[in-house]
Amino acid sequence: MEVQIAVAKVNKYATPESGDTLEVVERPNGGLSVVLADGQTSGHGAKAVSLMVVRKVIGLLADGVRDGAAARAASDALFTEKKGKVTSTLNIASVDLHSETIVLTRNNPASIHIFREGKIDELAEPSSPLGTSRDIRPLITEFAIEPGLTIIIYTDGLTHAGKRRGQPMNIGEMVKIALEDQDPTPQELADLLLAHAFRLDDERPADDISVVVLKVSPRQGDDVRRMNLRLPIQVKQ
Amino acid sequence: MEVQIAVAKVNKYATPESGDTLEVVERPNGGLSVVLADGQTSGHGAKAVSLMVVRKVIGLLADGVRDGAAARAASDALFTEKKGKVTSTLNIASVDLHSETIVLTRNNPASIHIFREGKIDELAEPSSPLGTSRDIRPLITEFAIEPGLTIIIYTDGLTHAGKRRGQPMNIGEMVKIALEDQDPTPQELADLLLAHAFRLDDERPADDISVVVLKVSPRQGDDVRRMNLRLPIQVKQ
Repeated sequence: MEVQIAVAKVNKYATPESGDTLEVVERPNGGLSVVLADGQTSGHGAKAVSLMVVRKVIGLLADGVRDGAAARAASDALFTEKKGKVTSTLNIASVDLHSETIVLTRNNPASIHIFREGKIDELAEPSSPLGTSRDIRPLITEFAIEPGLTIIIYTDGLTHAGKRRGQPMNIGEMVKIALEDQDPTPQELADLLLAHAFRLDDERPADDISVVVLKVSPRQGDDVRRMNLRLPIQVKQ
Repeated sequence: MEVQIAVAKVNKYATPESGDTLEVVERPNGGLSVVLADGQTSGHGAKAVSLMVVRKVIGLLADGVRDGAAARAASDALFTEKKGKVTSTLNIASVDLHSETIVLTRNNPASIHIFREGKIDELAEPSSPLGTSRDIRPLITEFAIEPGLTIIIYTDGLTHAGKRRGQPMNIGEMVKIALEDQDPTPQELADLLLAHAFRLDDERPADDISVVVLKVSPRQGDDVRRMNLRLPIQVKQ
């Protein structure tokens, strides 16, 4: 089998720094984890918060700490540092080759969409961001690693898109149509969702938006791990 | 402008764990860093060493420590822990949006190839891996971020490919032909180099091989950051 992970990420309009931070790290017992945090507000302050949360989590995962415990620890650290005044969402999606499962950890009011066996599910149980109080609990969902499983994770920039104009996006419906009609690559699906949000926000995103698509497929080729990354930059020179 | 980074990475034949670790992290003052380490020997022990080096380096970069200082610190930590008996190579390639430069840090006998203004250069000055002694110095090279700049970094699995059969690979020549004849994407170039090494090793790589290609281009599209990752996995179930 193979796992493909695609990310599409854009800043709030006219904001040079994204409050969303995403990093991918190897797990010490095999596999990898995608860690996505969205710091409260936007710009530099939000970036510092989400970067701190992601760094805390990846440091703990590197030490072999389980995902849920890493999320709780990051929440306590944020609560202690900011006295409950600053929050951050957190999603961890782990391909855990030790347990041979996909483990989803969610501290984010935004849902997660799951496509498997031809059916869309939404993980929409109420979930608190990190740093709001002591004893924050992450929601943990675990799936066997099976071909066809597709997981769509996003920050609230996606759910808020279009709200300004009273035309919020029906993310579940869009995912359903995209996956039933075509067989998009993870990157195509992430790009499609982001492009739609972009249009609903009149090409001026009202918030940072990050979309992550993780897909398990039958092995389609060689044993090579590949990563490809595109970073648009502004240089003053 | 935009920066594209592509990675192709394969394990030594019949070895489930790669001794090479590669991670990409955001820099606190803008931009990102690719950190690649190759731990001595192969398999689990080498993985633990390269993972420790990469984690040390990304932790320091996250705190705003400069790349060269992070490399020195990782070397001292490795030397202290392993008493000089275990070494690791290290390459850091940073897109530093604060200085508006690409900064290359090398503690690796393997060269780096640079393509700019239609010409190939090789950074081949002798360079020690980390952990061999106190006072290890990294070699630092800095370039302005300019369209057309292409940088090719690799672990010694690439330079050793084919040596078993007395047919080592001429990496510089291959890069030159590929870049002069066609205009390969970074992923195509990384894949081409890896595939050639694979053939020279009779499809059974004698060592872990990692190839990183970083390319600066004129802006070709939107403001979206994208990342795409493929992880081939073996599941016992």
